[in-house]
Amino acid sequence: MTSTSISVVEQVPALDAIAVLDALRSAFTELGRGNAAQPPQTVTLLPGGGDVILYQGQLGATYSVKVSPYLPQTDGSAVVTAWTILLDTATGRPELLVDAAGLTVERTSATSALAVDLLARPDAATLAIIGSGAQARAHLRYARAVREFTDVRMFSRSLTQADAPEGVKVAASAAQAVSGADVVLLCTSAGEALIDAASLPPGTVITSISTNVARAHEIDPAALPALDVYGDYRPTVVRSAGEMVIAAERGDWTAEQLRGDLPELLTGACPPPSGTRPVFFRSIGMGLEDLAIARLILEH
Amino acid sequence: MTSTSISVVEQVPALDAIAVLDALRSAFTELGRGNAAQPPQTVTLLPGGGDVILYQGQLGATYSVKVSPYLPQTDGSAVVTAWTILLDTATGRPELLVDAAGLTVERTSATSALAVDLLARPDAATLAIIGSGAQARAHLRYARAVREFTDVRMFSRSLTQADAPEGVKVAASAAQAVSGADVVLLCTSAGEALIDAASLPPGTVITSISTNVARAHEIDPAALPALDVYGDYRPTVVRSAGEMVIAAERGDWTAEQLRGDLPELLTGACPPPSGTRPVFFRSIGMGLEDLAIARLILEH
Repeated sequence: MTSTSISVVEQVPALDAIAVLDALRSAFTELGRGNAAQPPQTVTLLPGGGDVILYQGQLGATYSVKVSPYLPQTDGSAVVTAWTILLDTATGRPELLVDAAGLTVERTSATSALAVDLLARPDAATLAIIGSGAQARAHLRYARAVREFTDVRMFSRSLTQADAPEGVKVAASAAQAVSGADVVLLCTSAGEALIDAASLPPGTVITSISTNVARAHEIDPAALPALDVYGDYRPTVVRSAGEMVIAAERGDWTAEQLRGDLPELLTGACPPPSGTRPVFFRSIGMGLEDLAIARLILEH
Repeated sequence: MTSTSISVVEQVPALDAIAVLDALRSAFTELGRGNAAQPPQTVTLLPGGGDVILYQGQLGATYSVKVSPYLPQTDGSAVVTAWTILLDTATGRPELLVDAAGLTVERTSATSALAVDLLARPDAATLAIIGSGAQARAHLRYARAVREFTDVRMFSRSLTQADAPEGVKVAASAAQAVSGADVVLLCTSAGEALIDAASLPPGTVITSISTNVARAHEIDPAALPALDVYGDYRPTVVRSAGEMVIAAERGDWTAEQLRGDLPELLTGACPPPSGTRPVFFRSIGMGLEDLAIARLILEH
């Protein structure tokens, strides 16, 4: 009864950073050209509590849907999983079922690095990373694939030099880590500002990721007007990024002030950074990213 | 990379009719009790043309989503497939990926037979089937599991006695087939009325299935007021069944006149047939039915 023509991948294999970056670059370019689809996610409530979020995507001859249930257990804990299924749009047949949890760290950090590649100075050499978990370490790996960083600082409250990745100096504070940095990667699950983004020199690129914390943000919403603000995908980032939602509510900033997103940057449909302000890039995460990386796994 | 803990089933195995009927009876009962979920389907348009319909369901500790793409090809044809994935809601892990195309005939015919079991006289002995394709033959198999039919007639324009199933008499017309029948199973892809339902004796049970034809119907919409009308699931059947939609548009019938559905019949939440009119049962098909049968395959 079990077929071998559909691959089931429960453990995401080690992926080549350059290949992942290329896959994302291609996916966002196709999205900018109208050859890919990123429909809104759908949330379905389960009668016993919990919910299932479905994230769909299409890219070339591949359609994908990620099924991510949030399942409260009787002991008060919750199980959260995510599985992505790829279908070939020529045949309508499934090709791959992959545990998407392992894709999340890869796609999130590679997306931040793609933004760095598109927004940072070519000679950017000093990197600051705030956070020291799996996201921070993956961000480091992907960032090193887009720029030759000669000075890398990392800060988190728990990090000691012994636990730091190779070639990384542990900073005494977030402020010390970002001082003089060309690129700042915020890789935390913070629900409040970690650094004073508006005070950084013009051209400094700051990236920020999403967490499940409601209205989560890693910079002060009030800083947005002083920054060149970019996001991963315009239709979703302005509705979901905590600092953007809060700044818009307060009347400090509007969605029209988003300077561009990755599809626009890759197809020349938005302006590059002004050079007069720090650059802020915020990602939410998209089904299309999972699709692009899952396709790489399939080819693997 | 390929795991054996997730079953991939590309060919639906032969299923025991009694087990399938029990699984559906249990699923509709749980739906009636609020322990199962049948969310509305979602349609996503693909940028290159075509679409994907997602059908979700939850039943006890199982969540399912059926992914059904409609994929136009360059030669003018279209590929339509359907794959159902089951997840265990205790662990959030997928348990089964099954080609749902093979489930459709099973679940449709077993649902009609479940309705016959709930609506027809216990001593119903004469069965008429209109249509002679896969649906008609599967309907026969499931109907025989709920009543002791001693006289079975089948009619379709193309059917000869040599091609008829065992123990089945080929009728010369639809009218001849249904004359004196206790149960009439309409199993065609007709877009118009096949029989004069309102003229059949009180208590005769007529079942009717769905096709892809727009506003498809197997009986005259004008007959509805003269019938005890039931459906598989109230929220979907009154919106989708061609004869109900047309009759409502003409002002001949309203959704409130639907006497009951399967969850209501199984939990005593609607009246039984009046005994004074013929009984009409219309099914649309539901993700929950696929789920119930896929779960059987998993246990297989």
